[in-house]
Amino acid sequence: MAVTLADIHAAADRVRGVVHRTPVLTCATIDALAGRRVHFKCENLQKTGSFKYRGATNAVRRLTDAVAARGVVTHSSGNHAQALALAARVRGIPATVVMPRTAAAVKRAAVVGYGGAVVECAPTLAERERVAAEAVARTGGTLIPPFDHPDVIAGQGTACLELLEDVPHLAAVVAPVGGGGMLSGFAIAAKGTRAGVMVYGAEPAGADDAARSFAAGVWQPQTAPDTIADGLLTSLGALTWPIIRDRVDGIVTVSEADIVAAMRLVWERMKLVIEPSAAVGVAAVLTAEFRALPGLADVGVVLCGGNVQLDRPYW
Amino acid sequence: MAVTLADIHAAADRVRGVVHRTPVLTCATIDALAGRRVHFKCENLQKTGSFKYRGATNAVRRLTDAVAARGVVTHSSGNHAQALALAARVRGIPATVVMPRTAAAVKRAAVVGYGGAVVECAPTLAERERVAAEAVARTGGTLIPPFDHPDVIAGQGTACLELLEDVPHLAAVVAPVGGGGMLSGFAIAAKGTRAGVMVYGAEPAGADDAARSFAAGVWQPQTAPDTIADGLLTSLGALTWPIIRDRVDGIVTVSEADIVAAMRLVWERMKLVIEPSAAVGVAAVLTAEFRALPGLADVGVVLCGGNVQLDRPYW
Repeated sequence: MAVTLADIHAAADRVRGVVHRTPVLTCATIDALAGRRVHFKCENLQKTGSFKYRGATNAVRRLTDAVAARGVVTHSSGNHAQALALAARVRGIPATVVMPRTAAAVKRAAVVGYGGAVVECAPTLAERERVAAEAVARTGGTLIPPFDHPDVIAGQGTACLELLEDVPHLAAVVAPVGGGGMLSGFAIAAKGTRAGVMVYGAEPAGADDAARSFAAGVWQPQTAPDTIADGLLTSLGALTWPIIRDRVDGIVTVSEADIVAAMRLVWERMKLVIEPSAAVGVAAVLTAEFRALPGLADVGVVLCGGNVQLDRPYW
Repeated sequence: MAVTLADIHAAADRVRGVVHRTPVLTCATIDALAGRRVHFKCENLQKTGSFKYRGATNAVRRLTDAVAARGVVTHSSGNHAQALALAARVRGIPATVVMPRTAAAVKRAAVVGYGGAVVECAPTLAERERVAAEAVARTGGTLIPPFDHPDVIAGQGTACLELLEDVPHLAAVVAPVGGGGMLSGFAIAAKGTRAGVMVYGAEPAGADDAARSFAAGVWQPQTAPDTIADGLLTSLGALTWPIIRDRVDGIVTVSEADIVAAMRLVWERMKLVIEPSAAVGVAAVLTAEFRALPGLADVGVVLCGGNVQLDRPYW
């Protein structure tokens, strides 16, 4: 395992007072629909609007002063880009974020708003990686990838430690899975903290590489993902896949209609703005498959982010 | 004063474990815009989606078993209706809610969803009062008005006690004002708990009876209110007005454009669904008038509710 429980405890000490300790909320309506008590860890209320700020903060604070002074670099058009930009600004170091030219203006503006320097590139993974490597070579900065990095995984796991502190009797935790940074961090944190706790991933059926990999026991790539959950498009990583294979109990997949319905349910009943990727975890606990699992009186679900475009008609 | 600090402490004991202890959240973006640190008491995350559940619960739990058994009655098309319906259901007694025929179907459905019996009437205040009186006569139930009632005022004040427990160094608290139940409860709770704390009401310019009454020193009715903040349309009551006159330091009025902008700001940056009435308090601390107030390093603002129609285009 690339990350241990001790790493996550060390990360928790490192990010304490810098990241929000987000609340854990419940909703009687959702409990009735899920057939059990569901405890939501509200990382949509985290700084920069997602759990990504935990991993980015842990990674940035781990750097020595000399290394940190040269700044950090990443390529991302999503929540990690904003998270790294703010984490760098809080430490007082530069952040370079490589973004595809096609990224939404609002995402670019968010990174700039947090003090990041945006470098545009052509919208392919190869170009993103090439331009990011150029930025590293030019600045001497440190590349902080969005999920497949021990410090990032450990940082994401701190949300699970807090959740289990607040609700020690959880029988299971559920986390959405894209690259697997959060799910692997949750798995290490949960299995290490509470004997017998179950850990489930939640994934869109339209980007189900984790479910396929898990079923086959062999890593499978995600090709041509098709889902509204734009934070969950990527394949599992070299570090996250073995953790998920060995520490996760199952992957629940959900339809696009389920995702939108769960998103609206949370906005309407919990009064929380969550993004589609966060709704995937909610939709998972509402599936017939999950409802049929025996036991599990109390389940924790992480609402991973709340970065949406308010002018977009989601329903 | 119709309500004392001791009444509010007694209400807090009475509602503890029944109402949510809602979180207090902050937002660096709003702090920067407000020019000071703003602490938001999230009553949009309260059961039934608004602070009204506090007052309704306190009033319902105060009834003797014999009186309670005959049920409760109110006339309301807003958040108090849902709050009373749930408070009654939790106690296991019937609630009759008189609603104008013109009330939105979604509001009627919410009351029914919480187990209330809806009685329709013509859409005038006189008809609402007449039909409610009929229901009281028929059922022997107790009328629980939406704001002008000591138990309701004391219940709303419990949110302020919690806010001051969580952030003891607040220099001021700000609460939206419609009928004045929340503002008067906050004023008694805040002035009684912390010497020197300032208390401000926040009101739409399109329904500014509190500001006019406060300026004149004499109660003024609200006629022809015109605002998107549909929870703040009513005039101050016979019990709430003297408390506001004697215990509140000022009323800040805001424009319709300010309300919508503040509402969007909170959805977008805080990831919280708030209703227009709640945005009035946010808009107030962003006015040039409020920003110019000296001192007040830390200010508490109550986000009073989150009941919106998600299909409505607010912006």
